Amino acid sequence: MFNKISIIGFGLIGSSVARCIKKQGLAKELVAVDRSESVCKKALELELCDSAMTDVRKGVEGSDLVLLAIPVGACAEVAGQIRYSLKEGAIVTDAGSVKGEVARSVLPHIPRKAHFVPAHPIAGTEHSGPEAGFAELFMGRWCIITPLPDTDIRAVEKVTALWEACGAKIEIMDVKRHDLVLAITSHLPHLIAYTIVGTAADLEDDTRDEVIKYSASGFRDFTRIAASDPVMWRDVFLNNREAVLEILQRFNEDLTGLQRAIRKGDGEYLQAMFTRTRDIRKQIIQAGQADYAKPTQPAAETQAATGRRKASGSEA
Amino acid sequence: MFNKISIIGFGLIGSSVARCIKKQGLAKELVAVDRSESVCKKALELELCDSAMTDVRKGVEGSDLVLLAIPVGACAEVAGQIRYSLKEGAIVTDAGSVKGEVARSVLPHIPRKAHFVPAHPIAGTEHSGPEAGFAELFMGRWCIITPLPDTDIRAVEKVTALWEACGAKIEIMDVKRHDLVLAITSHLPHLIAYTIVGTAADLEDDTRDEVIKYSASGFRDFTRIAASDPVMWRDVFLNNREAVLEILQRFNEDLTGLQRAIRKGDGEYLQAMFTRTRDIRKQIIQAGQADYAKPTQPAAETQAATGRRKASGSEA
Repeated sequence: MFNKISIIGFGLIGSSVARCIKKQGLAKELVAVDRSESVCKKALELELCDSAMTDVRKGVEGSDLVLLAIPVGACAEVAGQIRYSLKEGAIVTDAGSVKGEVARSVLPHIPRKAHFVPAHPIAGTEHSGPEAGFAELFMGRWCIITPLPDTDIRAVEKVTALWEACGAKIEIMDVKRHDLVLAITSHLPHLIAYTIVGTAADLEDDTRDEVIKYSASGFRDFTRIAASDPVMWRDVFLNNREAVLEILQRFNEDLTGLQRAIRKGDGEYLQAMFTRTRDIRKQIIQAGQADYAKPTQPAAETQAATGRRKASGSEA
Repeated sequence: MFNKISIIGFGLIGSSVARCIKKQGLAKELVAVDRSESVCKKALELELCDSAMTDVRKGVEGSDLVLLAIPVGACAEVAGQIRYSLKEGAIVTDAGSVKGEVARSVLPHIPRKAHFVPAHPIAGTEHSGPEAGFAELFMGRWCIITPLPDTDIRAVEKVTALWEACGAKIEIMDVKRHDLVLAITSHLPHLIAYTIVGTAADLEDDTRDEVIKYSASGFRDFTRIAASDPVMWRDVFLNNREAVLEILQRFNEDLTGLQRAIRKGDGEYLQAMFTRTRDIRKQIIQAGQADYAKPTQPAAETQAATGRRKASGSEA
C-alpha cells in the first residue's frame, strides 16, 4: 500500500498502527520516530519497525506517509520541523482528538508539494507507551477523517485505505462538527471523570481509603477514564477550548437544576430527569454501540471483560 | 438457617436474594411480597418463592426475617404497615443505599419484640424487575451492615450469615460514615452520569444522533449508569441530601477550577490535575478492586464483558 511510512510518536496509538502495518504488510519500510531514546529502543526490541530514531527530520525523509501520533499541542511544532524534509507528494496525517486547532496550526507548515489529511481514530485505552499498543485496537471502531476544503481527494483515499486496513470504519466529517461532537461524547466525560476523581483524591486519608475499598459502586468506572494520558488530555482541552466550554456551560446548568431539586426535595423533577436518561441508553443499544446482555459471570473479573472495559472507555 | 423469610419488593435485589435463598436452601418457606400483581405472578412463574402476594401485612406473618428490598423512600411506610403483623423476635432488614434516613424513619415503627438491622449490599445492575435478578449478584461484593446503638447482636449475626451465604463480604460501619462514603463512591457518580446524559438528551436531533453513534468514546459508560432505576435513585438523593450536597459542593469547586484553567489556557494546572488522578486508579488496582490487564478481545463486545460491566457499575 505504501513504500515507506514514518510514525512520529510511538505511544499507544502510534505503536498500535505500527502493529497493524506489520501484520497486514501495509508498507515496505516503517520508521518509528520518538523524542525518547528509550521508546525508540523499545520499538526496535518489540520489532515494531525497521528503524527507530529521535531525529524527526531524518525520520520522515523519503516517506510516502507521515503519521503524527503525538499530543495535539505538539503537532504544529513537529510539522514546522519536518516541512523541508518531506518528499514530493508525501501525505501528512494525524490521529488527534481535536481537529480545528490542529488544522489551523499545522496547515501553514505543509509545503505545496505535500498533503495534509486530518484524521481521528476513535480508539484508545487508559494505558500509554509502545508496550500498551495492540493490533486490534482499531477493529470495528470509527475513524473520522476531516478533509479541509482543498485537501487532495487521492490523499484522503490513501488515508482511508490505511485506516480501513487497520480495521476501522470511516466517516467523513466537517472539522467544526467533529470538535463539537467529540466535546460531548469524549472531552466532557473525561473532564468530569478527572474532576470527580480529583475531588476524591482531596479527601482525608481514611475516607479516601474507604472510597478505594468501595469504588466498585460507580466511582471505579470514572477512575479508569481519569487514568488516561495527562499530556494528551491537557492538549485536548487547550485546543478544543471553545466547544468544551460551551458544552460544560450546559452541563453546569443541568447540574445546578438537579442540585436545586435535591435541596428542595423535588422528587418529581428528579424522577422525570432520571427516566428521560434511560431512553438514551436504549438508543445506544439499538444503534449497536452497546449490548443489552444478561450478566453471565457477574462476579468474575475476567480478562476479556477488563480488556473490553479498557479498550472501550478511555478514548479521545 | 431460617424457617420463613419474606422479601418485600421483588425487583432486581429482592429476586436475586430469593434466588440465593432457593439455591442455598436458606429458608424452609419463602414469601414474595410486591405491590404489583404482575410481579407476584412472575415470581411464582419463575419459581423463586413458595407464595407471592400483594398484601404486605399478611406477607410478613410468621416470618423470622423480613427483607425490605424497596426504594428507601418507601421503607418507613411499609414498616408502619407491617408493625402489628411481625412475629416475636422477627428481624427486619433492608437493602437500601442510604442508611441514616432509613434508620431514623423505620426504627420508630419496629415493635419492641422485633429487631431492625439496616444493611446495604453494594451490588446491582442498571436493569430492574424480577427477571433482571441472578443468584451470583452478590458474589464477592461488599455488604455493609450499620447496626444502631441498641441493635441486638444476635440479629446482626443472623443478617450477616444471610449475606455471607449469598456470597457477600461483610463490613460493619457507622450509619453516618456509610452515607458519606456512599455519597462519594456511588451517589455523586450516578448524579453526574444522569446530568451528562441529560445534557446530551437536550441536544438538537442531528447532534444527538451523532452522540449516540460515537458514544463509545467515553459517553457510553455514563449512559449505562444513567439507565438505573429512576425511583430508587430519586429516593437515594432525597434521603441522603446532606452528604450528597456536601460532596457536590466540593465537586463543583473542583470543576470550576478546571473550567477556569481551560478558559485561561493554564496547561500546567490541567496536567498536574490529570497526573494526580492517575494515582487513585493505581491504588484501586492495588486494592484488588480493578484489574490491570492487557486487552485481549478489545473489539468484541463479549457476553462476559458486558455482563461484568453491568454487574459492576450501576450499584447504589
